[in-house]
Amino acid sequence: MSAKISPLAPKTFPEVPPVAGVRLGAVEAGIRYENRKDLMAIVFDKPAQVAGVFTQSKCSSAPVDWCRKRLKGSKARCVVVNSGNANAFTGKRGRESVRLSAEAASLAFGCRKSEVFLASTGVIGEPLDVSGFTAHLEELETVAHEDGWLDAAKAIMTTDTYPKLATRQFKANGRDYVVTGMAKGAGMIAPDMATMLSFVVTDLPVAAPVLQKLLSKGVQGSFNAITVDSDTSTSDTLLLFSASNGSRPIADAKDRRVKSLRHALDEVLHELAMMVVRDGEGATKHVEIAVKGASSAKSAKKIALSVANSPLVKTAVAGEDANWGRIVMAVGKAGEPADRDRMSVFFGDIRVAKNGERDPDYDEAATTAVMKKDYIPITIDVGVGNSKATVWTCDLTHDYIAINGDYRS
Amino acid sequence: MSAKISPLAPKTFPEVPPVAGVRLGAVEAGIRYENRKDLMAIVFDKPAQVAGVFTQSKCSSAPVDWCRKRLKGSKARCVVVNSGNANAFTGKRGRESVRLSAEAASLAFGCRKSEVFLASTGVIGEPLDVSGFTAHLEELETVAHEDGWLDAAKAIMTTDTYPKLATRQFKANGRDYVVTGMAKGAGMIAPDMATMLSFVVTDLPVAAPVLQKLLSKGVQGSFNAITVDSDTSTSDTLLLFSASNGSRPIADAKDRRVKSLRHALDEVLHELAMMVVRDGEGATKHVEIAVKGASSAKSAKKIALSVANSPLVKTAVAGEDANWGRIVMAVGKAGEPADRDRMSVFFGDIRVAKNGERDPDYDEAATTAVMKKDYIPITIDVGVGNSKATVWTCDLTHDYIAINGDYRS
Repeated sequence: MSAKISPLAPKTFPEVPPVAGVRLGAVEAGIRYENRKDLMAIVFDKPAQVAGVFTQSKCSSAPVDWCRKRLKGSKARCVVVNSGNANAFTGKRGRESVRLSAEAASLAFGCRKSEVFLASTGVIGEPLDVSGFTAHLEELETVAHEDGWLDAAKAIMTTDTYPKLATRQFKANGRDYVVTGMAKGAGMIAPDMATMLSFVVTDLPVAAPVLQKLLSKGVQGSFNAITVDSDTSTSDTLLLFSASNGSRPIADAKDRRVKSLRHALDEVLHELAMMVVRDGEGATKHVEIAVKGASSAKSAKKIALSVANSPLVKTAVAGEDANWGRIVMAVGKAGEPADRDRMSVFFGDIRVAKNGERDPDYDEAATTAVMKKDYIPITIDVGVGNSKATVWTCDLTHDYIAINGDYRS
Repeated sequence: MSAKISPLAPKTFPEVPPVAGVRLGAVEAGIRYENRKDLMAIVFDKPAQVAGVFTQSKCSSAPVDWCRKRLKGSKARCVVVNSGNANAFTGKRGRESVRLSAEAASLAFGCRKSEVFLASTGVIGEPLDVSGFTAHLEELETVAHEDGWLDAAKAIMTTDTYPKLATRQFKANGRDYVVTGMAKGAGMIAPDMATMLSFVVTDLPVAAPVLQKLLSKGVQGSFNAITVDSDTSTSDTLLLFSASNGSRPIADAKDRRVKSLRHALDEVLHELAMMVVRDGEGATKHVEIAVKGASSAKSAKKIALSVANSPLVKTAVAGEDANWGRIVMAVGKAGEPADRDRMSVFFGDIRVAKNGERDPDYDEAATTAVMKKDYIPITIDVGVGNSKATVWTCDLTHDYIAINGDYRS
């Protein structure tokens, strides 16, 4: 946790309604931080259906490997998450830590090891000492309660400056349901995977394969469309649970109730992803990059990410400089089809460039007013087709350097 | 030109021997900067053979388009370069500026328009006013002289903190020859092209197709193996001239004299490329990333660039932190074959990780000593094959943010 709160932090935390049969808690395990909770669990009183997406890194962490295996047919009884140490690139000892954690959790929560999901976030390459986990998890079992969402969301923070929670209530077949999620992440954030850690729970009983479908799709316009620094974590984990509490889970993806869930879930995922961007390390601006007129959706996204990850674009935004020349540069380096002489660039609603040169009607003062805001929408028409994509990022500031120039030591 | 000189700047400038029949000069054209020369020319008294490589950007600048066309069979009588304005993304007006510049140069230097090569560097998207070029180029013709290398190298600087010159003398068939080059570049530097502006001249008479071969090959281990910020310029131009002064140019690539030139040229290109990295915006460290054990040379280079472009790796180096966890992260995100559990990481000669975990014999103090140096070699064995690649970069510091957060305004 940073002492300095992001200027883009939400002003209030949402009221999170309890999800029946789902308890959360956090304790101090002293893994890395002093005087803060760093170990949390979400406990399902009855086995929950579960779906997940993970980092595409070739160097995924030991807990990611564990979860991938567990997803194959298992139900979930708990997810145990520590901050301060990612248990990544820790070799045999890392795998042993994972095994011991699962064992401790199965004892504490009275379930099978295969029903335990694990995630770790923090420093890479340091062995994770789990010798105290048995006692800590027993304590967790006693403190976990249905209103523990905020406490749990705080326990998984690393360089985050605020906890990230989002919730939506929805109706299905006349009954009220809820979908609630938490996330952590501020640096080492880039798309092409489920970025960072996030855990989402609903009480609509939905079978794992349907959950997986919803999640894999929902992640495209949310976590897979954000980038803070182009760096992909070894530990990215996004798990979606259905705490069906013994009800028969819905196995038909076309069921109308699933549609209601999908809508609410997409909103929760999007809101959490935006919270991650707005807590991007050192961020002072939230930037939307919308690319249109591209030859395909994939090409549009590649161009949008090229712009979103460009250090020169990000520093220009930090300096409140509507430097569309750098945007053109970033479009050009993407290597995707784009017609230089038909390209347009907008900041907010103001077109600053059209047909490959400065718009003669472009008003510098009005553009500066756009750049001074918190949320900066940039639209680029690359002039070759009809496809589009939108990604979100933040600016690159001195604080990013300060936070990351002295993180490990 | 920045007021603050890079701590990695060379202590002295090399003595540049004159190249017969090649004159250089620079004048103040007032394009953007006050009280400094910003327009230079290299003038060949006799038509020179010429080869070139250019940016791969889809949004290349008007002068790049011009040079590409000129390369098809033309000889060169001059290259005219301005700093302060890139004449990129300037549409029809940009093409008109190029045409007028070539016309002015053809009048001033008494040659055909097609024998004029052009390059521009600086702000993107602003129209380049060339109305004064006829007068400025006439002045240039009178001031150009064989010892004008340093003056010319200074005139093309933008955010560079020092001029970049490299020279080698070599023998071919018992005679003495020279190859000398200049470069500019500090930001918007990324490989996959001839990065930034560079002009190299030899007096060995070599035909254009042979020059092109030497240049395309020579660029691989030099300009195409460096990155400052992953951002690819719209204006990257590297031209190699043979000032044959009327001698019959060597047309056989296997001629022994060409081999001598190749050796000297490769050294000049490498030295210039390293100068660009060492003048990377805000740089305090020069970093070598050597990847071995990869499945192919292409894969090795992709991994090396993933590490070299990672903001988290670059900020760690700035903080003198041997944070090999971030290196593993960057290897993982490259998406190339790598065996997490057979991977090794070295800082200098010190192996800090082996077989996918921390090396038990790893000495933190010795590693810190490596990190405190100017030049930091990082070696990564990804454990899947026998291929390798090396790239060079610099660290990411507060000064990069300061330089780029307020560049245009």
